Amino acid sequence: MTKPESKKSSVAAINATGKCATAASAAEQVNNGSLEPGCPDKSTDIKAGVMKQTSRESLQRRNTECEVYDDGTNTFFWRAHTVTVLFILTCALVYVTLLEETPQDTAYNTKRGIVASILVFLCFGVTQAKDGPFTRPHPAYWRFWLCVTVVYELFLIFILFQTVHDGRQFMKYIDPKLGVALPERDYGGNCLMYDPGNTTDPFHNIWDKMDGFVPAHFLGWYIKTLMIRDWWMCMIISVMFEFLEYSLEHQLPNFSECWWDHWIMDVLLCNGLGIYCGMKTLAWLSMKPYQWQGLWNIPTYKGKIKRIAFQFTPYSWVKFEWKPASTVQRWLAVLGIIFMFLLAELNTFYLKFVLWMPPEHYLVLLRLVFFVNVGGVAMREIYDFMDDPKFHKKLGQQAWLVAAITVTEFLIVVKYDPNTIMLPIPFFIMQCWFLGIVLIFTWTVWRFFFRDITLRYKETRRRKQEVPTDRERPLGNGNTATPSGRSKLNGSSETVRQRKS
Amino acid sequence: MTKPESKKSSVAAINATGKCATAASAAEQVNNGSLEPGCPDKSTDIKAGVMKQTSRESLQRRNTECEVYDDGTNTFFWRAHTVTVLFILTCALVYVTLLEETPQDTAYNTKRGIVASILVFLCFGVTQAKDGPFTRPHPAYWRFWLCVTVVYELFLIFILFQTVHDGRQFMKYIDPKLGVALPERDYGGNCLMYDPGNTTDPFHNIWDKMDGFVPAHFLGWYIKTLMIRDWWMCMIISVMFEFLEYSLEHQLPNFSECWWDHWIMDVLLCNGLGIYCGMKTLAWLSMKPYQWQGLWNIPTYKGKIKRIAFQFTPYSWVKFEWKPASTVQRWLAVLGIIFMFLLAELNTFYLKFVLWMPPEHYLVLLRLVFFVNVGGVAMREIYDFMDDPKFHKKLGQQAWLVAAITVTEFLIVVKYDPNTIMLPIPFFIMQCWFLGIVLIFTWTVWRFFFRDITLRYKETRRRKQEVPTDRERPLGNGNTATPSGRSKLNGSSETVRQRKS
Repeated sequence: MTKPESKKSSVAAINATGKCATAASAAEQVNNGSLEPGCPDKSTDIKAGVMKQTSRESLQRRNTECEVYDDGTNTFFWRAHTVTVLFILTCALVYVTLLEETPQDTAYNTKRGIVASILVFLCFGVTQAKDGPFTRPHPAYWRFWLCVTVVYELFLIFILFQTVHDGRQFMKYIDPKLGVALPERDYGGNCLMYDPGNTTDPFHNIWDKMDGFVPAHFLGWYIKTLMIRDWWMCMIISVMFEFLEYSLEHQLPNFSECWWDHWIMDVLLCNGLGIYCGMKTLAWLSMKPYQWQGLWNIPTYKGKIKRIAFQFTPYSWVKFEWKPASTVQRWLAVLGIIFMFLLAELNTFYLKFVLWMPPEHYLVLLRLVFFVNVGGVAMREIYDFMDDPKFHKKLGQQAWLVAAITVTEFLIVVKYDPNTIMLPIPFFIMQCWFLGIVLIFTWTVWRFFFRDITLRYKETRRRKQEVPTDRERPLGNGNTATPSGRSKLNGSSETVRQRKS
Repeated sequence: MTKPESKKSSVAAINATGKCATAASAAEQVNNGSLEPGCPDKSTDIKAGVMKQTSRESLQRRNTECEVYDDGTNTFFWRAHTVTVLFILTCALVYVTLLEETPQDTAYNTKRGIVASILVFLCFGVTQAKDGPFTRPHPAYWRFWLCVTVVYELFLIFILFQTVHDGRQFMKYIDPKLGVALPERDYGGNCLMYDPGNTTDPFHNIWDKMDGFVPAHFLGWYIKTLMIRDWWMCMIISVMFEFLEYSLEHQLPNFSECWWDHWIMDVLLCNGLGIYCGMKTLAWLSMKPYQWQGLWNIPTYKGKIKRIAFQFTPYSWVKFEWKPASTVQRWLAVLGIIFMFLLAELNTFYLKFVLWMPPEHYLVLLRLVFFVNVGGVAMREIYDFMDDPKFHKKLGQQAWLVAAITVTEFLIVVKYDPNTIMLPIPFFIMQCWFLGIVLIFTWTVWRFFFRDITLRYKETRRRKQEVPTDRERPLGNGNTATPSGRSKLNGSSETVRQRKS
């Protein structure tokens, strides 16, 4: 949070709105981790004298960011409470360990010791961990989820190092009902949309599919759209996942669905509607004003309530422009993101399968709630890292952890049930995937290597042809008056790329 | 690290030396976490336009900081390697968990799982944790120690929640030789400096005390002086600790020493010499130039070697001016620091006593190495928090953790051996402590409450008396020409305080 950009932009934002909030108060708030990279104003850049190299990329970046007004109010709510938390923690430890009788049960004490360690870690992290890109409703909220991410990753690593039997039995420590093999479940079945055999309700197959997973799918894709912030990427991931379900239904039976369940109910209705609503929300978020006044500075009650509600909306907004076709790095990054996203989705199903978790278990749900909270941060950090490497030299901490978690979950799946994973993929599906990969590879090579060469060759030939004509005309005119047609290919090939992407 | 101050000051430092390193490169390095609050130059403050409120305190603060020149070279050495570390971690996990056979030994796997979790946590922390105030030799070094601090604190919390028996036996997992009751040891003995009974070597009592603890005391106090950076505070802590040894020798027999061992060998020779050498080093550090050039920008080999050696000296230098008598807050803070310091020193002895650790065990030494590495950071963070609350709104993370560790260690001591702790203190020693506490309390009350009232009363009386004389003189002269004597008491009483402190 306290990156040069965020500081400069906060100052700029205040200046831009013409208010006279002192720069010091803004800096204080930055110090407190409560500012997000806001809306730089070009006019104050030179004055600030911090960044002199306003490169084209960073200018482009700024266009995707909204304008923020912040009066820099720094109330109790925003202040750091490091000493208070330390004091309360000490009191709690004194009470629990000295005044309470320690039970003689070693297993119980071990569990209690581990839980206490995790709680102390959370206490430390929530007050002291590094802030991420998000600050609303409160930076401590995101610090909390960062610590949860660390704890979850360490738990996964521990599970990864156990034998298959021990790992599954270890889940008993969390819930004694776990650690029991799941019954085989049969999916698929009758795929007739109109079942003439059932006279009372011929559409019963459809109603059967209308279970709790329909709103879950919708809500999931609504949130995923808010994370990815791009219609095309969402649609590609949504469709790709159905392809994956087709490809892997020989491994996990609950991937086997009817064709209309795949394409009409999932992709079109649930996911499509979720993505549509997500895009509408994104449009609203990118248009809404970002004005942050202190609660006590707002005169009316209605205004105060509105301000409290807006505390749960982002501090500022950055439109994601992934531009996958602009450079080969961005293209590979977007491919990597889609790959990791799909892998994380598959892990949901495989992990519960190998760890013998019933689909309706609360831990499965908790894992999804966890991903909802950390996925947005991770995606924003990846976008920043990819889009703005001048200011974001490090891959963000949350993105780093989410990547590590996805990999660890996958390793657990591979280690715990190599047989299922290695079940041979049907030949027809192999062919499809092979074709897809070849197509992507060919396109990549053509787009980022051969196309450039072709363009450069054409450009050179065109120039050679134009040289005689140029000489006939006066130079000044020739340089400026031909902005149309092929002359757009003038300059670097990058211009062409960015126009197309 | 990326606080507004550090950024501004780095820019200022570059401007101050008149070099034309671009501000962008400095900002990059800040981003990379490799800059420490350096030496702001007043002339560039207004230009930077970030802090307009240059209050008197922050101006004073600047006087205690050195000037730094940094050419902003940002080589591979300084760059963040988040993606590289993630990749290597993934490869290591794949190798260890998938390609190696998992042993069937549950206990071994559990141990391995915990060690692996800690290693992954270190991987995460070393690349991603929040930077502290120190950057030399490399910020990753201090991030590493921060993570070790977290792991150590969590280990202590776990131990704290076990029964006494389980906790002592738990140490067997770390070293199978531990978990065994220590033999009673008898200290003290013959205290004659010149023993006429022993004709071959009448000074044998002195040579007996000249063991490995003499250089340990010296080195320890050398490092402690570098941490505290104040002669008086060091001397007070050194003397206080000998008083504590006197007071507690009825609890721990190894506190019992001869009088000349206490005062001549410990305080005067070992500690005194350590503090003296420490103060000399501090003087050198505060005078030495802080010029950081990229290694490749240095022409000569000798220069390069010198630059590499200087990598192990601080990036910049802040003189600590504790000024305990200036305000009641600072006075209480300094008292608190001395208290925590002494508590941490006592914990060294008590903790190994209650956990049945032999004094020469490597874990005891490791704990001291740990404190050497984190103590300096913690002390600097406390000083910043106390001295400069405008910029350091949070108590630093390392200071927070070290405080928590000291408290947790003490709680373990109390829980594991309440009998030793509660052994009644001899009446004479009780009297001494009571007297000392009463003296401190009286002085505090007089210094910060009654003295002010007295001074204000005298001031008011003097003014009343001076009013007639003032009227006789012209106003302009009267306001400026009396800077001596009692007129220094003019203005707030704070001026008086600061002059005296």
